Amino acid sequence: MRVEADCIPCYLKQGISTLRIAGIPDKEISKTINNVLGIISELSLDGVPGYNSTIVLKKIYDMIGIVDPYKKAKIQWNDYALGQYGLFCKLVEESDDRLHKAFKIAVAGNIIDMGITPDFDVALAMNEITDREFDLDDYNELKSMLEESKNVMIIGDNSGEIVFDMVLVEELKRLGLNVIYSVKGGPMLNDSTMEDAIQVGLTSICEVVDTGNDLLGVVFEKSSPKFMEAFQKADVIISKGQANFESLEGDKRAGDKTFFVLRAKCPLVAKCLGVNFGDIVLKRNRS
Amino acid sequence: MRVEADCIPCYLKQGISTLRIAGIPDKEISKTINNVLGIISELSLDGVPGYNSTIVLKKIYDMIGIVDPYKKAKIQWNDYALGQYGLFCKLVEESDDRLHKAFKIAVAGNIIDMGITPDFDVALAMNEITDREFDLDDYNELKSMLEESKNVMIIGDNSGEIVFDMVLVEELKRLGLNVIYSVKGGPMLNDSTMEDAIQVGLTSICEVVDTGNDLLGVVFEKSSPKFMEAFQKADVIISKGQANFESLEGDKRAGDKTFFVLRAKCPLVAKCLGVNFGDIVLKRNRS
Repeated sequence: MRVEADCIPCYLKQGISTLRIAGIPDKEISKTINNVLGIISELSLDGVPGYNSTIVLKKIYDMIGIVDPYKKAKIQWNDYALGQYGLFCKLVEESDDRLHKAFKIAVAGNIIDMGITPDFDVALAMNEITDREFDLDDYNELKSMLEESKNVMIIGDNSGEIVFDMVLVEELKRLGLNVIYSVKGGPMLNDSTMEDAIQVGLTSICEVVDTGNDLLGVVFEKSSPKFMEAFQKADVIISKGQANFESLEGDKRAGDKTFFVLRAKCPLVAKCLGVNFGDIVLKRNRS
Repeated sequence: MRVEADCIPCYLKQGISTLRIAGIPDKEISKTINNVLGIISELSLDGVPGYNSTIVLKKIYDMIGIVDPYKKAKIQWNDYALGQYGLFCKLVEESDDRLHKAFKIAVAGNIIDMGITPDFDVALAMNEITDREFDLDDYNELKSMLEESKNVMIIGDNSGEIVFDMVLVEELKRLGLNVIYSVKGGPMLNDSTMEDAIQVGLTSICEVVDTGNDLLGVVFEKSSPKFMEAFQKADVIISKGQANFESLEGDKRAGDKTFFVLRAKCPLVAKCLGVNFGDIVLKRNRS
């Protein structure tokens, strides 16, 4: 997925959210945002939105001298999600199709967004798991592929969400699959890192690999050999969230072994997927 | 109302909408937006949002060499609203409180926004007139003041909306009031100008004065003597829409003779008014 003009105000909105999370006073936020405008004008007009966002956000991190503005919020989200974990397991237990339910839980986790209030998330996410079907659903294709697979890689997205994904990891393991889960190599927004994986206990149920970089989405050129090896070895890739979709969609290396699991939280992503804003998606990549 | 950091991405969003309305190709839109980023970094951090927006938009108008990108759209919106005029009159005729209904119609007109599809507007606006009450309602105060007034000035907002306001003009005239309606002195976004007033027939039912400038909101320092005279002479000012609110709210010259009639279409405006995003408001200025 390539950038459009509408991404430009969005880089700024993400920057403003980050500065608020970091506790910067409003007047300073305006000044900081004004100071990154020059960088935005130099960003690629052919690039991937998440990659451009990363450049802007890193500049902001540098300017305020805070390595991980979301650190506290990430821990809180993980704690919150861990509190729901028992419910997730119960939902899977009671389901006719455990794996399908686990994917529903995984997409519900993708609702978690630092810009939305916790209460709102809870209601929305629970509704997503219990009542709502995927608006795009390539589950049957994915299930068939998994039956003939050995290695599955999940490209993780946010903290909090990582707990929702743990249920999916467990279900894939029940099918006898070897699961590797990837986290970011360093802090970027509320993306999960190895610290999150350890906090929520994911490292004790499957192999966790870090991308070797702190960039939004998947950037093959900057990925660690370990990440690349796992990606190439995997028979099926499950890519969570928008930034991973933005970067993998249209990339031949993702191929038709990649399935995207996400909520379309941006109008451009929705357009690219051919769905409505807010829809939930389990979609196979067409290479 | 003063700018906040969140206004910065919004300047860009308005610019992108304008470039789309003007038919500029997407690739050119990104380049044009990138070229105005430098101007944004120099805008006042203590100013009024609409005034800053005007500076960005004027630069864009200059860059694309189009004097009035919304010209065609404005004519269409006026035509559409004129098609509803008979219905507005009927609603007033059938109402127990004709003046209150006329204010409801006037706020319904404020929903019109070039960013929203026509069908959506129709349903929303009609709903606003028939079912919904003002979320902030200083109507009784306003009615009492009007009973002791002679001269009323309506500070107009958008094309299309100007037709909704005509019903209010008629009702104020029925009460024996002298009504003056103001339009912009030149094209800016979809704000109504003298051309709109002539197209919809407003000039034949009341005096129409232009602001003497093409700036969003009311900018006293750049207003024509005729506008200033009407503003000062008015016993009651009815200010339509967000940009007029942004500029008049907190300005002593607006005083407690000014009443704001608008829909809060921006979170910051909603916060400043103490209402929810999307609420409709008839609120007296507290000077």
